[in-house]
Amino acid sequence: MRIVQKYGGTSLGDATRIQAVAQRIKTFYDEGHQIVVVVSARAGMTNELLERARAINPEPDRRELDVLLSIGEQENIALTTMALHALGVPAVSRTGAQAGILTDLAHTHARIVDIDASTIIPELEASSVVIVAGFQGVTPKGHTTTLGRGGSDLSAVALAAILEADMCQIYTDVDGVYTADPRRVPNARKITHIAYEEMLELAACGSRVMQARAVEFAQKYKVPFEVRSSFNHNSGTMIKDKIRSMEEVAVTGVALAPRQAKIIVSELPDQPGSAANVFQALGKASVIVDMIVQNIGHGGRANLTFTVDRESAGLAEKVASEAAQALGGGGANCTGEVAKLSVVGVGMRSHSGVAAKLFGALAKAGVNIQMISTSEIKIEVAIDVAVAEHALRIVHDAFELGDEPANQPDP
Amino acid sequence: MRIVQKYGGTSLGDATRIQAVAQRIKTFYDEGHQIVVVVSARAGMTNELLERARAINPEPDRRELDVLLSIGEQENIALTTMALHALGVPAVSRTGAQAGILTDLAHTHARIVDIDASTIIPELEASSVVIVAGFQGVTPKGHTTTLGRGGSDLSAVALAAILEADMCQIYTDVDGVYTADPRRVPNARKITHIAYEEMLELAACGSRVMQARAVEFAQKYKVPFEVRSSFNHNSGTMIKDKIRSMEEVAVTGVALAPRQAKIIVSELPDQPGSAANVFQALGKASVIVDMIVQNIGHGGRANLTFTVDRESAGLAEKVASEAAQALGGGGANCTGEVAKLSVVGVGMRSHSGVAAKLFGALAKAGVNIQMISTSEIKIEVAIDVAVAEHALRIVHDAFELGDEPANQPDP
Repeated sequence: MRIVQKYGGTSLGDATRIQAVAQRIKTFYDEGHQIVVVVSARAGMTNELLERARAINPEPDRRELDVLLSIGEQENIALTTMALHALGVPAVSRTGAQAGILTDLAHTHARIVDIDASTIIPELEASSVVIVAGFQGVTPKGHTTTLGRGGSDLSAVALAAILEADMCQIYTDVDGVYTADPRRVPNARKITHIAYEEMLELAACGSRVMQARAVEFAQKYKVPFEVRSSFNHNSGTMIKDKIRSMEEVAVTGVALAPRQAKIIVSELPDQPGSAANVFQALGKASVIVDMIVQNIGHGGRANLTFTVDRESAGLAEKVASEAAQALGGGGANCTGEVAKLSVVGVGMRSHSGVAAKLFGALAKAGVNIQMISTSEIKIEVAIDVAVAEHALRIVHDAFELGDEPANQPDP
Repeated sequence: MRIVQKYGGTSLGDATRIQAVAQRIKTFYDEGHQIVVVVSARAGMTNELLERARAINPEPDRRELDVLLSIGEQENIALTTMALHALGVPAVSRTGAQAGILTDLAHTHARIVDIDASTIIPELEASSVVIVAGFQGVTPKGHTTTLGRGGSDLSAVALAAILEADMCQIYTDVDGVYTADPRRVPNARKITHIAYEEMLELAACGSRVMQARAVEFAQKYKVPFEVRSSFNHNSGTMIKDKIRSMEEVAVTGVALAPRQAKIIVSELPDQPGSAANVFQALGKASVIVDMIVQNIGHGGRANLTFTVDRESAGLAEKVASEAAQALGGGGANCTGEVAKLSVVGVGMRSHSGVAAKLFGALAKAGVNIQMISTSEIKIEVAIDVAVAEHALRIVHDAFELGDEPANQPDP
């Protein structure tokens, strides 16, 4: 088999962990597989380098930032290769450029354009493990680029696609994808199989397992992959195309984004373009807006409510306020924090009653719903922060996602 | 003018120093020069990386070591470029590979084969400073190599040669080359001009200003260069071909290698090949031998004396002993430490009496000479460690090298 494995920064944080990773790679190697390993920089290194850059230049050039940041993965490809050598496993390292990972010119958030695997395949065929620096690539003219957050996962999935790998394993510090965050929901269950789009919605809902970008890429190129832990030998979660013959479960998981700021824009003129104006202004200010709800108010005026990361709350309030007032509307006010609870599942399309069950469970628990937003495979509600974790467990049980019903403390 | 500057690890040790270097580059840039800057890794980084490697594999693969070690310079090209941007100076970084520094395949001690400057020259002509990673290069197949100790100086001199630079400046933490180590000889004088071969002899005698390799390269390609300090604005020392019209000074400088081990091989059969056998054995054991003196003893037996770095003393004693005994000779004994005092000057060739003056000065000061060795432009003596520094000052004054005679404390 041809296997692509990816190890994250916590899996490669120090010499001992790198040696443990090498031992794991050796196990697969000894079974006769061809193995490509994508590595991240050790945890914390990227931030160290960013601090060093900003001490010298508060707004470092993106091209130079890429030259700087790419050394983190370069360090770990060399060390991981040395660790394999110490175990007697033939191995060779490849930077992004040496692995032929060609990108566009968008420094710090480059997109992979193509991979020239001609330097990797002969090594694999000569029974050498190939250790590739994740997160980085090279432009056609030889400039170093980085792929942005989640870039190493993307490198792994892209390599798996181009190498037509039989398996792609994303090793991380969690066991897989759960029906809910196990730290919040004690009876959360590990999901054995999940569809790309469900994984994407869970990522967008604050599940920290993986960045959406690599999942999107895997979906586009139909690369099934497994998320599993580098700290144990448990099987993880397979992410792949929905299998049609599988009995559809309406809801696959629930997620909580615990602290978002809610901003109400009041008395906006109820005419075409009002909302567009407000969100264009927010976009220009690089504020990322999450949920949006609009109600028509009285006297031709509408109230618009949206949520943002709480770090962006002050800026969002200011920008939205100015935009609203320029339209002759009232101001914008941040009315405090809300939690966003999301219910995700591809089966939702064909099953009615998911919304009803969700709202019913929340009502029964006395949780007031402040905002509702839906997509084809997701329903989200904004609720009071104070009851959010309780609500998460209630909903998790209502959809019978846990191994067994958890003991629910009263709110 | 086209200028190549090289900054060492202590000159780029932290953000403040990198900013000071950028300020210095800006001064030259503002005068309208084309500037290529070669940078080393920050002081200590290479050792940090070596430690990390050895914690994982006590004998790391040389190819992977190069991948690892090259990140030190890569870090500093990015940071130095960012520092120039912060001062409004257009600048762009180049790794060794991006700068077209092609080497042979000898990982960790590669030789520069050629430099393809086609990516550097257009940047210079577009008025951009080009910051190049020293110490590293790339093989024709794209593998990263490093050049070994003194590699960044070599990168600078080689770039100056290929770019036909008008000036090559090696910035370091000393002011230039002195007639003797100023920490040992208070009235030592900075040398304004020195010939390549004198610089080479001084480097071999323990002057720590520069590794011999870059000087040899400069001599071969006739690249004049200046060694000067990055911590002040004093002019430094020009190293170049001997100017024939210059009035020749017999002695340019004196140097002291304070602690070497002296090993006596006794009663070696006085026949062809005896000495060769001993030194072949030492060579195989990678022991670097410095001075060698042989006297014919009695009864067809010779005594052979040589010096080595004191770190190598134990190994040298063992290896030489075994080799001597295999020849039917006596053993080898390390008889303690000696200091090596060297007197260097191209004028020595045409001036008689240098040796006489040296031996006379030492005799007058009561310093016993244990060994003597000469080359065309150098006389070396091994003397007692305890009187070495005193002897250095005596000799320095005897050749009238100082600004004014120093007050000599009695030994």
